[in-house]
Amino acid sequence: MDPRSELYPLRNKPLISIAIPSSLVSEAPDLREKTRKVGYIGRSAAIFRAEEIMVYVDDSDENAETILKILEYQEAPPYLKRRIISRDPVLKYAGIIPPLKIPSHINPEVYGLDARDGVVEHNDEVKSVVDIGLGKKGVIYGSILPVKTRITAKIIGETQRYYILKPVSKSDVEIYWGFTVKKFDSLRSLVEHSMRRNYMIVGASKKGVMLYRIENELARTLVGAERLLLLFGGPRSDIDEIASNGGIDIKRYCRYIVNFVPRQGVESIRTEEAVFIVLSLVNYIKEKSLMYTT
Amino acid sequence: MDPRSELYPLRNKPLISIAIPSSLVSEAPDLREKTRKVGYIGRSAAIFRAEEIMVYVDDSDENAETILKILEYQEAPPYLKRRIISRDPVLKYAGIIPPLKIPSHINPEVYGLDARDGVVEHNDEVKSVVDIGLGKKGVIYGSILPVKTRITAKIIGETQRYYILKPVSKSDVEIYWGFTVKKFDSLRSLVEHSMRRNYMIVGASKKGVMLYRIENELARTLVGAERLLLLFGGPRSDIDEIASNGGIDIKRYCRYIVNFVPRQGVESIRTEEAVFIVLSLVNYIKEKSLMYTT
Repeated sequence: MDPRSELYPLRNKPLISIAIPSSLVSEAPDLREKTRKVGYIGRSAAIFRAEEIMVYVDDSDENAETILKILEYQEAPPYLKRRIISRDPVLKYAGIIPPLKIPSHINPEVYGLDARDGVVEHNDEVKSVVDIGLGKKGVIYGSILPVKTRITAKIIGETQRYYILKPVSKSDVEIYWGFTVKKFDSLRSLVEHSMRRNYMIVGASKKGVMLYRIENELARTLVGAERLLLLFGGPRSDIDEIASNGGIDIKRYCRYIVNFVPRQGVESIRTEEAVFIVLSLVNYIKEKSLMYTT
Repeated sequence: MDPRSELYPLRNKPLISIAIPSSLVSEAPDLREKTRKVGYIGRSAAIFRAEEIMVYVDDSDENAETILKILEYQEAPPYLKRRIISRDPVLKYAGIIPPLKIPSHINPEVYGLDARDGVVEHNDEVKSVVDIGLGKKGVIYGSILPVKTRITAKIIGETQRYYILKPVSKSDVEIYWGFTVKKFDSLRSLVEHSMRRNYMIVGASKKGVMLYRIENELARTLVGAERLLLLFGGPRSDIDEIASNGGIDIKRYCRYIVNFVPRQGVESIRTEEAVFIVLSLVNYIKEKSLMYTT
């Protein structure tokens, strides 16, 4: 695919993060349904190139752990899942988690790239051998990495036996390379973490200002911003309620609190639906503003 | 809720229809998964006030029937489901279909309305008695309707025993009142039906023009349009392929074919995901244009 194409999944700024509550899965009747809900969150993150999924505890740490484990499983390249994900009863329904098929999961040559994820399989005094899920193993000369280390690398050459690799940071890959998952003990610690790192925070809420009233202003703010965090509430409480239960006023942290669904036809929208809706609008407004200001 | 609120689920023009292929459920491994996929389509239709879901056969009539039955079940008010939906093995997993909670499913007084759906329970020479899921039955005097007829009515008075009803057309209700479901033998018959009725047709495809390139033009066209049909492809083929398999050129029927996801991070987007994404953008652009031109 031509890197100049409007279809090319560029890793462009502002990088997008989303924050969801542990209560996301609280009303699902069983593990299968919890798995399903989390799988949809991972899909929407991947479709719209979200870099981070932050999970904050608003009900139970157990729910947060469930969400983390399922997302980490989903984000791992299919050829590495068995190597890097330990067996866990929470992953009983891993079979119904929808595959992401992001660039790091498929042959990156589709995008004209030579990047690849791998896991160190063994090493000796001069090299580390890496499983990169291809016909041949990869090798890193002069760098002795611990077995099981997960790395991202560029293929810089080839011998009869190995692909020669150069480890890179995920952020050196120019296209979307999946999301990381982080847990926070509370919404408060999540927003404080994000403020310290200069994230622009936007909350999603039925009670927020209608998107069309602030679209132009938002678009101008997005151009030039480094990171945008989209904040979601849970099935029982909106973000302002979760925040005030935790003793903070969410308005102090959010640049905007936005209603993304004018005239919604249903009484309430579920978190996993809201994530789809909000990311689809934010991705659109972001790309539109980048297209017409650069 | 104040009818002037931007949250009020007004039944405003252009009315939105969506068209999905029978192959939507072809790759789901079992009935439970098929039910799930269809349930998501119903949810997105309801969230964004879609009036019609058209199902066209591109693989098997059986799949189309499955989709129809699940959507009809989902759309029926909860207090009438058992009366108006016949038992069917396809509805085995009805328990996992997410409830819609559209205005016709909940107490319409939330919206300051007196409309109600019901089913004729019995009749005599002077009246029809209607189950409207409230403490008292409804009654229509002077109109002998067949038992089991489903009606929409306004409550115009009250006796000790009955609510007095006046039947109305669904389209007389000013807020969103659910969707109808129609089956078409082919994509061709669906688009020809829609052209004859003057629907403006927009196709969704990764190969389409980027939404931001035509947003302003689309917004202008939407204001004043009566009906907008959004056309979706299936898990194996895009709309242009389904159309050309059926011997037609889809471009001849569509005002636009649009890519709604600039720089998508995944290889392909599922139909039920696309419906969420497209409806969320179209609902937004529609309401924005109505807000700023009237």
